[in-house]
Amino acid sequence: MKKKRRLGLIGSGFMGKTHVFGFAAAERVFDLPYEVELAAIADVTMAQAEAARAAFGFTQATDNWRSLVADPAIDVIDITAPNALHKEMALSAIAAGKHVYCEKPLAPLAADAREMADAAEKAGIKTQVGFNYLCNPMLSLAREMIASGELGDIRGYRGLHAEDYMADACGPFTFRHDPAGGGALADIGSHALATAEFLMGPITKVMGDCVTMIASRPDGKGGVRPVETDDVGRAFLRFANGATGSIEGNWIATGRKMQHDFEVYGSRGALAFSQERFNELHFYSTADAKGRQGFRRIEAGPDHAPYGRFCVAPGHQLGFNDLKAIEVAGYLEAIAGLRPEPFNFRAGLRIQTLVEAIQQSSRAGAWLDVNGD
Amino acid sequence: MKKKRRLGLIGSGFMGKTHVFGFAAAERVFDLPYEVELAAIADVTMAQAEAARAAFGFTQATDNWRSLVADPAIDVIDITAPNALHKEMALSAIAAGKHVYCEKPLAPLAADAREMADAAEKAGIKTQVGFNYLCNPMLSLAREMIASGELGDIRGYRGLHAEDYMADACGPFTFRHDPAGGGALADIGSHALATAEFLMGPITKVMGDCVTMIASRPDGKGGVRPVETDDVGRAFLRFANGATGSIEGNWIATGRKMQHDFEVYGSRGALAFSQERFNELHFYSTADAKGRQGFRRIEAGPDHAPYGRFCVAPGHQLGFNDLKAIEVAGYLEAIAGLRPEPFNFRAGLRIQTLVEAIQQSSRAGAWLDVNGD
Amino acid sequence: MKKKRRLGLIGSGFMGKTHVFGFAAAERVFDLPYEVELAAIADVTMAQAEAARAAFGFTQATDNWRSLVADPAIDVIDITAPNALHKEMALSAIAAGKHVYCEKPLAPLAADAREMADAAEKAGIKTQVGFNYLCNPMLSLAREMIASGELGDIRGYRGLHAEDYMADACGPFTFRHDPAGGGALADIGSHALATAEFLMGPITKVMGDCVTMIASRPDGKGGVRPVETDDVGRAFLRFANGATGSIEGNWIATGRKMQHDFEVYGSRGALAFSQERFNELHFYSTADAKGRQGFRRIEAGPDHAPYGRFCVAPGHQLGFNDLKAIEVAGYLEAIAGLRPEPFNFRAGLRIQTLVEAIQQSSRAGAWLDVNGD
Amino acid sequence: MKKKRRLGLIGSGFMGKTHVFGFAAAERVFDLPYEVELAAIADVTMAQAEAARAAFGFTQATDNWRSLVADPAIDVIDITAPNALHKEMALSAIAAGKHVYCEKPLAPLAADAREMADAAEKAGIKTQVGFNYLCNPMLSLAREMIASGELGDIRGYRGLHAEDYMADACGPFTFRHDPAGGGALADIGSHALATAEFLMGPITKVMGDCVTMIASRPDGKGGVRPVETDDVGRAFLRFANGATGSIEGNWIATGRKMQHDFEVYGSRGALAFSQERFNELHFYSTADAKGRQGFRRIEAGPDHAPYGRFCVAPGHQLGFNDLKAIEVAGYLEAIAGLRPEPFNFRAGLRIQTLVEAIQQSSRAGAWLDVNGD
Repeated sequence: MKKKRRLGLIGSGFMGKTHVFGFAAAERVFDLPYEVELAAIADVTMAQAEAARAAFGFTQATDNWRSLVADPAIDVIDITAPNALHKEMALSAIAAGKHVYCEKPLAPLAADAREMADAAEKAGIKTQVGFNYLCNPMLSLAREMIASGELGDIRGYRGLHAEDYMADACGPFTFRHDPAGGGALADIGSHALATAEFLMGPITKVMGDCVTMIASRPDGKGGVRPVETDDVGRAFLRFANGATGSIEGNWIATGRKMQHDFEVYGSRGALAFSQERFNELHFYSTADAKGRQGFRRIEAGPDHAPYGRFCVAPGHQLGFNDLKAIEVAGYLEAIAGLRPEPFNFRAGLRIQTLVEAIQQSSRAGAWLDVNGD
Repeated sequence: MKKKRRLGLIGSGFMGKTHVFGFAAAERVFDLPYEVELAAIADVTMAQAEAARAAFGFTQATDNWRSLVADPAIDVIDITAPNALHKEMALSAIAAGKHVYCEKPLAPLAADAREMADAAEKAGIKTQVGFNYLCNPMLSLAREMIASGELGDIRGYRGLHAEDYMADACGPFTFRHDPAGGGALADIGSHALATAEFLMGPITKVMGDCVTMIASRPDGKGGVRPVETDDVGRAFLRFANGATGSIEGNWIATGRKMQHDFEVYGSRGALAFSQERFNELHFYSTADAKGRQGFRRIEAGPDHAPYGRFCVAPGHQLGFNDLKAIEVAGYLEAIAGLRPEPFNFRAGLRIQTLVEAIQQSSRAGAWLDVNGD
Repeated sequence: MKKKRRLGLIGSGFMGKTHVFGFAAAERVFDLPYEVELAAIADVTMAQAEAARAAFGFTQATDNWRSLVADPAIDVIDITAPNALHKEMALSAIAAGKHVYCEKPLAPLAADAREMADAAEKAGIKTQVGFNYLCNPMLSLAREMIASGELGDIRGYRGLHAEDYMADACGPFTFRHDPAGGGALADIGSHALATAEFLMGPITKVMGDCVTMIASRPDGKGGVRPVETDDVGRAFLRFANGATGSIEGNWIATGRKMQHDFEVYGSRGALAFSQERFNELHFYSTADAKGRQGFRRIEAGPDHAPYGRFCVAPGHQLGFNDLKAIEVAGYLEAIAGLRPEPFNFRAGLRIQTLVEAIQQSSRAGAWLDVNGD
Repeated sequence: MKKKRRLGLIGSGFMGKTHVFGFAAAERVFDLPYEVELAAIADVTMAQAEAARAAFGFTQATDNWRSLVADPAIDVIDITAPNALHKEMALSAIAAGKHVYCEKPLAPLAADAREMADAAEKAGIKTQVGFNYLCNPMLSLAREMIASGELGDIRGYRGLHAEDYMADACGPFTFRHDPAGGGALADIGSHALATAEFLMGPITKVMGDCVTMIASRPDGKGGVRPVETDDVGRAFLRFANGATGSIEGNWIATGRKMQHDFEVYGSRGALAFSQERFNELHFYSTADAKGRQGFRRIEAGPDHAPYGRFCVAPGHQLGFNDLKAIEVAGYLEAIAGLRPEPFNFRAGLRIQTLVEAIQQSSRAGAWLDVNGD
């Protein structure tokens, strides 16, 4: 009989829902070390919390996240509340000795993220930040091909995360436009950065270019509010492995829904990937015979763990929610001590550090070394 | 408090697992009319059944499917056992007054499928056959575009379901090569037929071309066994809507993992789809401005129900198991009387009827009218 | 100093122009055995002929093709006049001892084409029929890969030539709708057949499905005229190499401009090609490492002769007119005895024979053996 | 009767050949204002020149380019000699009152290019620099869509020109690695810059990132020679139209043969293009109906001038050499005063100015305003 872990979820929006789907799927798909009980859910109002409880199958609902965090019957706190609240919630949970799973970004500012990472490590609890695009088997394959030398010396990288959900200039000012932690680079460029380091290892220097293209937005009260955060955040990159590259985060890329792409160029091969078709990895090998070389469309299948957990046949494809299930499973295994934390608070801090380095570099108009954490 | 429906699953292989994933996901993703309890699972041996029970979270396990069918505490019987057993199991379940969910094909032979459909209708229970590719929101979109006249008069159709899992001539003889009900047309060409009628409405005439390309296969005892079933099954088609077309089922299509494709040509537009990228539908409209016409890659999003149930943002993509969740949800809604059965035994019979008509036409080398059911 | 060959061109429309482009380019791109002089051009009226002469750079113009054919100063007669005139023109030219280059189809009916081929062979002159899609280096590569065994035993074939230039039901009745020799199968399905045999070798049996979808068209006099020719011509195929397959010719495929596609499936590999991107050939090899298999996009380059004649660097791409230049060069080399005729009247007859066999099979609703020539 | 213009070509390598193809094709395809006579060709040795003369159909050959430039019978000097010689040759030709067509780059250094542009303008002769990717009808379409407001306010740009012809670290040191004017940015990044300004209008500021990834190369004498020029040149860009963007030039992009790509994002639409499939332009419009939006693959056809000159039917495709024919035709029309020079020496200088600004910015690690010319 498996041990139980009781989950307390804070937030029931887009990401709250995705987390619940992730736990539900992970339970069926993986041989998890724990049985996860959906113990309690908190939201701003009791009505919201109760509706989410019923929809998602939690035992209890509350409009007081503090009571949820304090509840001794709960083992793991899962935070999908607005970014600005992550820190307070996580620190409370850590203080209560709970494991903490926090949706990205870990915190709007790196300084806050650092406090959270330090606290988590000091408390010895296990943490996870949700960067679920990383859980794609095709990204693991890419990382392995890079690390193993299959592509030769790695020389170049191009990364991207572009969407269009802020492309409409009539879209209102939101918390995502808050000068403290907002902007396209922080919001989705962060995914491009996470993927870049996941594949390539540490970034050592950055040169940023963060631009505001829509200067003001409706403030919801009939007026407009100036926007100071970036709509597009670009960076040149230096990697510790000797490669150079670039990334772009862009939330006004009209027509793009999920252009989370990368290309990697090595001395003996290359990779090209697009999240628009994320069950494929395109691979070029200079070892192929003359006249027969070309980018090869590898389709995800059981050869690419943990795809086989979801489906025994190749080509059937994983969906976005499946990536979350993989993330959930990895975290539970880490809690059980079966593997290192896949993407802990320290890793989440790292992304914030990179984001802020790029922003600072952009303001200064100069290259900046990136600190180690 | 939702009413409960207790599920009894027979079989725990590829499809058994997929069904369990489907029920688990459907529960979270949809607002189901019932709470589904995973009551009991049956497999050939007690060891297999018990392992599946533990892995999937069923309450009970048994190596006797008859006792599972007979159990008065179970409301819905879900059959994912080998095809040859579908009939006996389903008829037992129907006799016991249970709703029956049966993986495709409904039965190896249309005559058997007809018995099953007749029995189900007579008993008034609700049935479902698993043709989960149909549950793709992009196929619903395609059907709607065809039905609404958005494409004008529908003239041409090309359908395909090609894979390569039988391409290796050293692959052994299996039940799928059984002359009674086996072959590529029955096994996967059936998907191409289901999609064709789902989109276009009834097929009225067929001309078949069923060929065996690998004449014999290892019999598992050191010898070989001749193969009489088709490796490729093709058909020309006539549709009641006036269109003509073709389909191909092919399990020796080297390199293809999921080439479930279609193209539809109308007088005012066209559609192109590939299951290899099943979150996209390509749409050409003659109404687009001169010099601006072209196939448009529509990416699945909340505009295409029920995508929004899984994810509030476009471009995130559904996976194969999500399609099963949609199938499950539709069936449970049908049990609750909220909608017609999405793909009942009568529909399952229809596919077998089409398969056999094509096979018979191929043997005769002549066109054949397809009967109404 | 190269010997001269004087060209007499009949017709100055789409194909006449393309031929002139072909000769002009071939002269620069290839090391031709002859210098080709654009000696004379004939068209229906003197005005048309003179305009074409000036535009294309011919020395003389005439409205009398017979005088052009009779002119002893002309060595090669190039026929791009309407199909119905090909036979009379070609036989005249052959009788005058001229080499004859004839745009496809060789003649509307196979019987006529046979007379032409017989006459040419008896006269010992060199002939060429324009099937220029065959001159693509990527098709040569595909043929070589099939012939060499690189794909293993060849099992399956799918061919297509679909366009939409007849998709508008208001488009008038033209000579292409003439029951003697007209229809989509003859007009463009013929390309699909030419490619099929070019790659796969002889077709031995066919089962045809030729359908008229637009029953009548404006007759240009305010009335309508019934259409008896096919808008879509499909066929199942048997090949002498043991493979089976299908082709479709379709001129009402809304949105398609050049869907001249094929897929070839062998026991050890597969190919996929689309004329929509005709500088690419997609190749799957079962010899690729586990987890690294996939269709590989080979881009045309100097490794794929005669691409290097046009450009020393890969990826720059050939255009449609370049294919015609390759055709022209091959024909001139054949005239010089340096190689066999690439696609002579006998080959042109072969296509007509296949077209008529498919049409006849369609009318009979039964398979038909294809005669040897 | 058309007036003649006599061409003197200097150089007979890759580009010399391409120019000859361009003149030959342009003569047939376009209604040129002149008849172009291939009067004389110069190369380094008499043997090379004579071979090229015979192959290309020039009247005379010489190993002395000065005599060719001085020949009063020659009207247009076409320079495809090594970059380092462009200046001297062009200035001589200008001094002799000849029109000058010069392959890109106009000169290795902007200072030299400026002298050339100034001299040409002072002399009142017509000049052309070969940036033939710009002559693609799909680029004209893109430019028109941007300029007309069809895409709304233009906000973002991503440009690229990546190939792999320098990816092999064993490839020898060549003139392309010369610190004066060499490097990937100058050699092919220049194409990305030309396309960027062609589409978007003037670049006003740049931030460069030019990196050497292969530190030394064989010197051809058994030793190695350090490389100081960039293998990858990146830049952030500001445009006068208010947009921001980036480009990359990269000649070590393993597997890429012609990744000359761009994406343009406006407030009401977007474009995506790849030279790998350069007969297509992908267009997204926010005006498309809800649930029907997506990038639309527009295939080149007669609606996109001057495609119709080459072929009356859409989808047949232009090749690389056809782009050169368009360039040639535009230049000859400019010589005849029928249109402005499409891409004159001033425009060629502009590219060098941009290249050097990016290089200088990269060395300084700071943004740089770009001067007006």
